[in-house]
Amino acid sequence: MSADHAGRGPDYAARRGALRSLLVENEVDALLVTDLVNIRYLTGFTGSNATLLVHSWDMRNDEERTVIGTDGRYRSQVVEQAPDLRAEIARATARRIVELAGEWQLGRVGFESHVVTVDQHHGLVEQKTGLELVATPGLVEQLRMVKDAYEVEQLRKACAAGDAGLAALLERGGLRPGRTERQVARDLEWAMYEHGAEAISFETIVAAGANSAIPHHRPTDAVLAPGDFVKIDFGAVVGGYHSDMTRTFVLGRPTDWQREVYSLVVESQRAGRKALRPGAQAGEVDAAARSVIEAAGHGKLFVHGLGHGVGLRIHEAPGIMKNGTGTLLSGVAVTVEPGVYFPGRGGVRIEDTLVVREGGPELLTHTSKDLTVVE
Amino acid sequence: MSADHAGRGPDYAARRGALRSLLVENEVDALLVTDLVNIRYLTGFTGSNATLLVHSWDMRNDEERTVIGTDGRYRSQVVEQAPDLRAEIARATARRIVELAGEWQLGRVGFESHVVTVDQHHGLVEQKTGLELVATPGLVEQLRMVKDAYEVEQLRKACAAGDAGLAALLERGGLRPGRTERQVARDLEWAMYEHGAEAISFETIVAAGANSAIPHHRPTDAVLAPGDFVKIDFGAVVGGYHSDMTRTFVLGRPTDWQREVYSLVVESQRAGRKALRPGAQAGEVDAAARSVIEAAGHGKLFVHGLGHGVGLRIHEAPGIMKNGTGTLLSGVAVTVEPGVYFPGRGGVRIEDTLVVREGGPELLTHTSKDLTVVE
Repeated sequence: MSADHAGRGPDYAARRGALRSLLVENEVDALLVTDLVNIRYLTGFTGSNATLLVHSWDMRNDEERTVIGTDGRYRSQVVEQAPDLRAEIARATARRIVELAGEWQLGRVGFESHVVTVDQHHGLVEQKTGLELVATPGLVEQLRMVKDAYEVEQLRKACAAGDAGLAALLERGGLRPGRTERQVARDLEWAMYEHGAEAISFETIVAAGANSAIPHHRPTDAVLAPGDFVKIDFGAVVGGYHSDMTRTFVLGRPTDWQREVYSLVVESQRAGRKALRPGAQAGEVDAAARSVIEAAGHGKLFVHGLGHGVGLRIHEAPGIMKNGTGTLLSGVAVTVEPGVYFPGRGGVRIEDTLVVREGGPELLTHTSKDLTVVE
Repeated sequence: MSADHAGRGPDYAARRGALRSLLVENEVDALLVTDLVNIRYLTGFTGSNATLLVHSWDMRNDEERTVIGTDGRYRSQVVEQAPDLRAEIARATARRIVELAGEWQLGRVGFESHVVTVDQHHGLVEQKTGLELVATPGLVEQLRMVKDAYEVEQLRKACAAGDAGLAALLERGGLRPGRTERQVARDLEWAMYEHGAEAISFETIVAAGANSAIPHHRPTDAVLAPGDFVKIDFGAVVGGYHSDMTRTFVLGRPTDWQREVYSLVVESQRAGRKALRPGAQAGEVDAAARSVIEAAGHGKLFVHGLGHGVGLRIHEAPGIMKNGTGTLLSGVAVTVEPGVYFPGRGGVRIEDTLVVREGGPELLTHTSKDLTVVE
């Protein structure tokens, strides 16, 4: 059991235990973990250079050969964050860990072929350790899809920081004609920090007027004007977990066209959320939301997938997109974010972060989705 | 000539021209560029999904077969940012571009083997296009090491935003006993935004007291106390280019030990800067700074390399480290950042961003390196 778990922190040993089942299934004796986010998930270590070796070892619980490598900068940090693991200090961490695995004659060792580059792989093969390196992509990501109680709690806090930050922006009158997209983005980020964010999930999108038709617009010095749609896509990080939310506002009295587009996206988003249930296929969920927009004749203006998994990374498995495969399980955290974009004119996107549950998804982003008119 | 170059923007066509020389040297008919920062460097496109094919084509200047692929979200953005290139819209951009290269029977096509994962490579090989995919790592990074006039100008602005942000923090009394590391970090980031930063280079490090001995400490709620060393490592982004600077302060009257450690790091950093000249080996520059600390008997407390290249990424080639190979050229932008860390007690790091020049490096970070006592 990891030291952290004595409190209410993550149970890293339990996560490594779950990984061992996958290693046995995949018929490897160990997994070489090189993705830093996966290493954080499995150990709590947050340094910028690390390699982890998790042995399957017939799933015995002793972890004597679970070893984490990092360099001299993190000598004290690795002991503090991962006190239950053997630490190896070396500059070329992957090289050193593979060398150890070779000395231990581990046999078949899986590697993260979705992360390891062609050059890195070549280097490991050239070490001639006698190990058989086997491509085993996405094993830790598969575990990470289903969030444990600790993770959901972090996501709730991150989403709450996002909700509170947006509320503070609106209360202070930070969203109004005459301000620039950049100013609004900076104020919102600042407000999230004030409300508990340890970092920003990604570069905040504030897109006004015709810019709102650009799905991933970067804020500019464009000035917000009466009549504009203003699309805001943003998030906060708490405990390493990312929130993700989009709301679209109208500055002043909405036109009939604006009301119509907005209602359509609300309806599509509701249909997408409703389709989120354990056992659903990712493609079905996308289709549930997309069909609403297609029925209105605007299918070609919904130019991206419906959503994505969210957690230690802002984008992670599963992807919820057209013809997406993969079955949703209870505990999977995802976004639902349909959008309709009229080039040169304006667009609307509405996005929530949710956790798939029996009996209906748990909504983590609570800001109202009613059309909000900012006077 | 790229459209941007009509003003004083980057000359993307010239950069692609320089790349063509490298393609001919490497005996490939084209390069498949999949690293997004490299794509930005070569085209100006800043979207989050892209693949670029640059043909060598015997170095003729016509670019009819230079093609950039991206997905539907960026349909209008790619035309706006890279108007001189043929754009292909597809979800699986690399797949589509390789398909095109196959139709054009390009022959030997280089790929970025330091970026392309084992799985991605496997997917491209499986397309059976008849192309010969050749590992050609780091070609664009090699070009990116030497900054052109436009790039140096962006770095100057980024460093100026960092200098101004730190000055504003100090003027406002933002660095004083009683405040937390996190508060200081947030205020500094805010001040950089006020002074022209479009983003923060990396998570700001503010490390007080014993925490200053942790080279890459993340800010906590630890409260600054009289007598502390406070190490601040931070940067601003302007035009996509990153600044990087570290300063270490003393809160209140410094002890003799603090003065001694500080002077040692100043002397080491000066020696490192002095060794920066066109033709120098990276390892020589590291040694120039490291030998000062070693001579004082603290070599083991300088636990990291001396510096790194900086530009569109916060860490890029060249690495300036012990036994580092590679020759510095005029126009290479690097950091020089020696540090001495006494575990449990405190540490000092001093870092500048500079451009290697004939006649001595150009200093871009201008904040004083004299021991600054904050009362």
